[in-house]
Amino acid sequence: MGVEIERKFLVRSDSWQVHAGNGSRYRQGYLSHDPQRCVRIRISGDDAWLNIKCATSPIRRLEYDYPVPLEDAQEMLQMLRSDDCIDKVRYPVRHGRHVWEVDVFEGSNAGLIVAEIELDDEDETFEKPDWLGEEVSDDPRYYNMNLAKQPYSTW
Amino acid sequence: MGVEIERKFLVRSDSWQVHAGNGSRYRQGYLSHDPQRCVRIRISGDDAWLNIKCATSPIRRLEYDYPVPLEDAQEMLQMLRSDDCIDKVRYPVRHGRHVWEVDVFEGSNAGLIVAEIELDDEDETFEKPDWLGEEVSDDPRYYNMNLAKQPYSTW
Repeated sequence: MGVEIERKFLVRSDSWQVHAGNGSRYRQGYLSHDPQRCVRIRISGDDAWLNIKCATSPIRRLEYDYPVPLEDAQEMLQMLRSDDCIDKVRYPVRHGRHVWEVDVFEGSNAGLIVAEIELDDEDETFEKPDWLGEEVSDDPRYYNMNLAKQPYSTW
Repeated sequence: MGVEIERKFLVRSDSWQVHAGNGSRYRQGYLSHDPQRCVRIRISGDDAWLNIKCATSPIRRLEYDYPVPLEDAQEMLQMLRSDDCIDKVRYPVRHGRHVWEVDVFEGSNAGLIVAEIELDDEDETFEKPDWLGEEVSDDPRYYNMNLAKQPYSTW
């Protein structure tokens, strides 16, 4: 078990790119969209994981991550309807003591860029980089599982 | 990946007990009830598994099974509301070339006993033991994930 505390923001300029590390491409789909028990299949390169998140508050979650065979994940993603999958490239961006994850979405979510930070507890402070926009942690439209069903291009 | 072909029957007498092996107690709960993408956590003794079944027809399913840490499974089952869990004891019962699995349900499903057989293909023949009752493979009420939500005692 891990407790995940995550805050999510929009991005209001491209200046994060100067500090970005190499991007990792993710393709992921959802076996369950229930925020109380979200089940995700993710492929990045030759690696695949099954991930379970059980939300206990909008920014606090129990999280479990298990590696699975790549072929299993490919079969499952193929079986999911395409509207249950999302594609994005994730970039690590260091700022102060933290490493942000900036997700640049593709496909039907192209145009959307969000930045996430993981914290050790809900009250932990962090520096806000100047490229950071509005906080959207509490907005369900930005949950990745919801972006799969109702992509940014349809808003 | 595995393709699972399973047929399920009611049990009309106790005579299966004469041929039954040792029972294994299962406690299981569901992260997703969607028959197209059912996600189950199961604990038996000190072992725990995450299981994913993707139905492609009532008796044919893609199935994936992954061992997970016992503590993770315990946490997840605890988090699921009790109406998303079922308890049963499963007995192996050999008959002819096949081993049947007889599930004796407990708790809010007490009184229900079903027998399942796994086949290599949909047309495979098998001997029916004299304790076997009506086939219920196509009846969604008997899906374990539905027994968790709408237990036998409420029918």
